[in-house]
Amino acid sequence: MSRAQPLWRRALAEGLGTGLLVTVVVGSGIAAAKLSPSDTGLQLLENSFATALGLAVLILMFGPVSDAHFNPVVSLVDCWLGRRSGTGLTARDLAAYLPAQLGGGIIGAILANLMYDETAVTWSTTHRSAGHLYLGETVATAGLILLIFALARTGRAASAPAAVGAYIGAAYWFTSSTSFANPAVTIGRAFSDTFAGIAPGSVPGFVVFQILGAVLGTAAVAVLYPDAAKADLYLGEAVATPHAETTAGAPS
Amino acid sequence: MSRAQPLWRRALAEGLGTGLLVTVVVGSGIAAAKLSPSDTGLQLLENSFATALGLAVLILMFGPVSDAHFNPVVSLVDCWLGRRSGTGLTARDLAAYLPAQLGGGIIGAILANLMYDETAVTWSTTHRSAGHLYLGETVATAGLILLIFALARTGRAASAPAAVGAYIGAAYWFTSSTSFANPAVTIGRAFSDTFAGIAPGSVPGFVVFQILGAVLGTAAVAVLYPDAAKADLYLGEAVATPHAETTAGAPS
Amino acid sequence: MSRAQPLWRRALAEGLGTGLLVTVVVGSGIAAAKLSPSDTGLQLLENSFATALGLAVLILMFGPVSDAHFNPVVSLVDCWLGRRSGTGLTARDLAAYLPAQLGGGIIGAILANLMYDETAVTWSTTHRSAGHLYLGETVATAGLILLIFALARTGRAASAPAAVGAYIGAAYWFTSSTSFANPAVTIGRAFSDTFAGIAPGSVPGFVVFQILGAVLGTAAVAVLYPDAAKADLYLGEAVATPHAETTAGAPS
Amino acid sequence: MSRAQPLWRRALAEGLGTGLLVTVVVGSGIAAAKLSPSDTGLQLLENSFATALGLAVLILMFGPVSDAHFNPVVSLVDCWLGRRSGTGLTARDLAAYLPAQLGGGIIGAILANLMYDETAVTWSTTHRSAGHLYLGETVATAGLILLIFALARTGRAASAPAAVGAYIGAAYWFTSSTSFANPAVTIGRAFSDTFAGIAPGSVPGFVVFQILGAVLGTAAVAVLYPDAAKADLYLGEAVATPHAETTAGAPS
Repeated sequence: MSRAQPLWRRALAEGLGTGLLVTVVVGSGIAAAKLSPSDTGLQLLENSFATALGLAVLILMFGPVSDAHFNPVVSLVDCWLGRRSGTGLTARDLAAYLPAQLGGGIIGAILANLMYDETAVTWSTTHRSAGHLYLGETVATAGLILLIFALARTGRAASAPAAVGAYIGAAYWFTSSTSFANPAVTIGRAFSDTFAGIAPGSVPGFVVFQILGAVLGTAAVAVLYPDAAKADLYLGEAVATPHAETTAGAPS
Repeated sequence: MSRAQPLWRRALAEGLGTGLLVTVVVGSGIAAAKLSPSDTGLQLLENSFATALGLAVLILMFGPVSDAHFNPVVSLVDCWLGRRSGTGLTARDLAAYLPAQLGGGIIGAILANLMYDETAVTWSTTHRSAGHLYLGETVATAGLILLIFALARTGRAASAPAAVGAYIGAAYWFTSSTSFANPAVTIGRAFSDTFAGIAPGSVPGFVVFQILGAVLGTAAVAVLYPDAAKADLYLGEAVATPHAETTAGAPS
Repeated sequence: MSRAQPLWRRALAEGLGTGLLVTVVVGSGIAAAKLSPSDTGLQLLENSFATALGLAVLILMFGPVSDAHFNPVVSLVDCWLGRRSGTGLTARDLAAYLPAQLGGGIIGAILANLMYDETAVTWSTTHRSAGHLYLGETVATAGLILLIFALARTGRAASAPAAVGAYIGAAYWFTSSTSFANPAVTIGRAFSDTFAGIAPGSVPGFVVFQILGAVLGTAAVAVLYPDAAKADLYLGEAVATPHAETTAGAPS
Repeated sequence: MSRAQPLWRRALAEGLGTGLLVTVVVGSGIAAAKLSPSDTGLQLLENSFATALGLAVLILMFGPVSDAHFNPVVSLVDCWLGRRSGTGLTARDLAAYLPAQLGGGIIGAILANLMYDETAVTWSTTHRSAGHLYLGETVATAGLILLIFALARTGRAASAPAAVGAYIGAAYWFTSSTSFANPAVTIGRAFSDTFAGIAPGSVPGFVVFQILGAVLGTAAVAVLYPDAAKADLYLGEAVATPHAETTAGAPS
């Protein structure tokens, strides 16, 4: 379905969705830090509760338009895995998706700052750089890629909204890096010196290991789900798929 | 389906549903403030947990009767977006829905007060008026409208109960205003001087920016989901839709 | 489907299910009170989290056998609403269901006590009797009845496990009585002098208002969902229904 | 579907899945204990939130390959219950599944340790041995087995990811042992001296009562769901089932 949409609309959906995702992450982080000042774990519980629910909702909201990637590495892997079947994003698609995601992520952080009466842009001073954190980002991103494309390649894209939200909600806890797992969100989070922020100097390290995680996740997809025949089942097409199948099964 | 119901029954469902929604919001707020007196964040976590689950359940409970709007701006947008296809609420419908929602919201607040042994009506003294809070309400309402009509216009209304509950549960956290996003609920919450209350003097400001948010959300629907052909898929009709499609796909 | 099962198996499922429900409620209450001694709200959050998930799972576990009532007032209302269509529980069914639920609830409380190394039976000393608590129980039970039969009468019984779990999870918070809403669970909870207990002397009052709530909920079902034609869609039959419909739509 | 996969791929999925499950349990336990040092209940709430979501996601991720057992007693019961219909795991399957689960569980604990900058292997010093804890493990495992095979034998395997995640999330609270319910996970958790650890000397006792619980759970399946005709509906095949039925219902 999404490829039937004009590219400008798909890019707009990616920009809005990535932006609102960063707004959810940063905004709920600000609220949690303000309202639960004495327990960092409780702050993270509040932040992960809001993110798990909010991310699921955003995928529902924008999925039928753009497939709701909201994440440059998801778009790149989609392009790579669908290159032979002609179902992946094209280079032209990427040229629209990636800037929309990056720009959206930054605007989303600014929106969160403004909603909470902070200065529009404050560079984060939270340094996040250490080997074990990079290991966390690698694991987090590999798992995200495997989840998304396992669902897509087995015709279960309708489960993606709840599943991806649940994955990130859990990964906030089980990875030491709190699972950024997304270069656009990582860059956006550099624009807010609050709970969910990351110092600009820590961004490149995170992005490098997110890319490494995406490569590992893609390898896992290739090993566990080698059948690319269904690779054209993008997230957003879950809507159309059941109808099409029911119709296809009936005589015409 | 809902239009096959007599209007009095639909209005009754809107009144009961909006009332119980305010009961959920105000009642769980009173419980949270009493039981977790030392951490406001924990209170909001408890309040948002109860609201996310309770709102989803109420949409399931009343959706097949009235489409479970529980919200004047949702009803107004439904009327506007369905005006050409003849599938939206009519002016006559609105004349029953809006008073039912407003009256129900007030009664729901009184019920919560009584269940917690408070005076039946106590005007809230919680002032909520500031530019950044208005920005929060605008974002919250725009997102709610986009979510509901994105689902309706893509045949995914069966996801609405869980999705709308999850949206509000997340928006309690990522918007600075804790996402009232509903004029009837806002007015109802003025009738309880407890955790979830809002001072009567702050109500008009909130409602104005909720309407602005609804306009922005409607614009987003028009841009992202311009195909109004499916606009007659109201929330409550999700029940009937799959059956109809399955039947239609089979030979007769 | 359930009526195709022998009555002993259905009664066994009701006993096991009601028992495990009380085990979930009482057991998680003991754990919460022990592990979070300083904040009653946090205890209730833990208790409601475990109950919402656990109740949903128990309905999935036993629904296909007995329809997973686990609640005498649900069984009584089922008998009443299905009396004309011949689809409700019969008097003979009730004579097996009700004792199984009551006995199961007591055994479930004992099991929770033993798992937590408490004396097998300790009468609760938590007095719960006041007008506003009775109002809470009335609202809680009315809402539960309306939810269950709204789903059954609109062919959405497959949503019942998650919906009923979510309802009780929310009602722990929005009703002042923490929503017992179930005579068998109420009696079982008298057998444990822990977080979720209720003093034996407070049980009759709760049960009376649960029955009143059930009457009000049944009236709401009759007003909002008067069409009894689908009243034979019990909870457990959600499994069979979609298959039957798909099959019916195809040529044979 | 899964039996159409080569055994090496299925064993790899079991190893990865069990490993990541232990990573989720141990990793979120480390984070919870570090971030919420003052309230053990809050730690368990964070741990159970992450596990409920993470386990559901892992079953979605690996189910279509291996049926996502991640648990030696589930594999053994699957072999036993499917022995006559020829649909259960074979002895050769078990010889690949069980070592993969055990090895994966250990590696998963090491991964969690490394992500949180702990020594790769630290034997747990948390002793867990007492009669009431063994009762807890027995109940926890019996319930898990009944849930999984009740879903499989009634064609509801598509509900298994959310249901199994929810079950464990609740059982963390209602069983005194915090519901290990899995020998591979129990052994893995011995390799981390952190929140979720178990001293090596306590492992055999837990495993013995997990096996007892599995026997009781299997008996409950036999009594409540005696019809083995659908026993070939493994978890991972939920994906294929609806399509097959729709297709089968249409003329060819």
